[in-house]
Amino acid sequence: MSFMQAALGQLRAETKLPAPALQHTSAKGLQTRALILDEALRLAMRHGLESLSIGGLAAVVGMSKSGVFAHFGSREDLQLSVIAEYHRRFEQEVFFPALAQPRGMARLRALFGNWMQRTAVELDSGCIHISGAVEFDDKDGVVREALVASVQIWHAALQRAIAQCVELGEWRADVDAQQVLFEILGLILSLHHEARFMRTPGAWRRAQNGFEGIVQRYAVPPAQQVPAPQSA
Amino acid sequence: MSFMQAALGQLRAETKLPAPALQHTSAKGLQTRALILDEALRLAMRHGLESLSIGGLAAVVGMSKSGVFAHFGSREDLQLSVIAEYHRRFEQEVFFPALAQPRGMARLRALFGNWMQRTAVELDSGCIHISGAVEFDDKDGVVREALVASVQIWHAALQRAIAQCVELGEWRADVDAQQVLFEILGLILSLHHEARFMRTPGAWRRAQNGFEGIVQRYAVPPAQQVPAPQSA
Repeated sequence: MSFMQAALGQLRAETKLPAPALQHTSAKGLQTRALILDEALRLAMRHGLESLSIGGLAAVVGMSKSGVFAHFGSREDLQLSVIAEYHRRFEQEVFFPALAQPRGMARLRALFGNWMQRTAVELDSGCIHISGAVEFDDKDGVVREALVASVQIWHAALQRAIAQCVELGEWRADVDAQQVLFEILGLILSLHHEARFMRTPGAWRRAQNGFEGIVQRYAVPPAQQVPAPQSA
Repeated sequence: MSFMQAALGQLRAETKLPAPALQHTSAKGLQTRALILDEALRLAMRHGLESLSIGGLAAVVGMSKSGVFAHFGSREDLQLSVIAEYHRRFEQEVFFPALAQPRGMARLRALFGNWMQRTAVELDSGCIHISGAVEFDDKDGVVREALVASVQIWHAALQRAIAQCVELGEWRADVDAQQVLFEILGLILSLHHEARFMRTPGAWRRAQNGFEGIVQRYAVPPAQQVPAPQSA
């Protein structure tokens, strides 16, 4: 079970939201669910999580409303499932491949590079973390909480990677990982804003330059690197 | 006539959009228009420009639909008027007060500081530039163009202020103003994202630290400052 599934389970328990409908656990049922979810994710990325409805989705996938209801018991459950699926794909494309790199700068570079790649794809399709932030910034409830949890899990992973640069002595000991995360997030948000909304050329290069600027500011020159003492 | 009014006039001409209805040019008519516009701006900041409708707005301000139509000839004209009004207020709060500071770092600091203040207010009310970017990033049309024009005018003003830091010799001669703008925009977007959506404490301080980091990276130490030769 991934962090995100655990976080969603916790949220469902806390808010007494019914567990997702699971009438169809046959191979065919699971396949149908996956197809519906794929379409729901595509719609949510383009038009927002709030645009989703069981009826609208049924029309798009050519099923009856009750057919979709059998897989997703409510609109809220559908939205939560879309967030979990988005999170799963994001982890698969951005997070897990970077673990093949050694800890420290190599892994942080891979995480940022994969995030840039993902952002480039989402310049066409839209991004649930960014559009969802605008949709749910002043709404409370379980969907907002799931979205925040998904972003938090990703930010925590990045912060760990930044902290490891410090632990390994590649970055200065006084580096504030949360500050670096804030600045890296800013580069990605600027890239999305400039390239997707303003359609300004060169945003990709500027995001990369910004990342190199951060590295230069915080890195210890290789000749002076001494690993920080590990805490017990 | 401000840049924004000129840009809107240009857009209306290019797209053959009818000029705004101006049946009511009496003092009372203009006052009523201002009241309706104020309410429309408040709604758009909270729920998005796409949430606006003549009928919905009429209900909120307690007027008939035809009463609102007399001031705003169409939903599109209403949206354009809201963008122009938002732009006017943004200029008044963020841009013009900074002109009291001398050109160079002092003015750039004032622009960033005022932008931070404005962003802090918009953590409650919402921001049309940010939410509008998500609403209109994959829609074409005159409303998107007006929104982009409004953001472009502001970005151009910031870029001029950054370029002046270089011209005055306060910043290194090789500074790329568009790169700095990209990084400063990232700090504001991160502030909005962390504080309004994630509700993470400390975002304000991190945005300020990020700005100081940019200054340290690009500034020439005062002892070494020599104004760059002015181009003819």
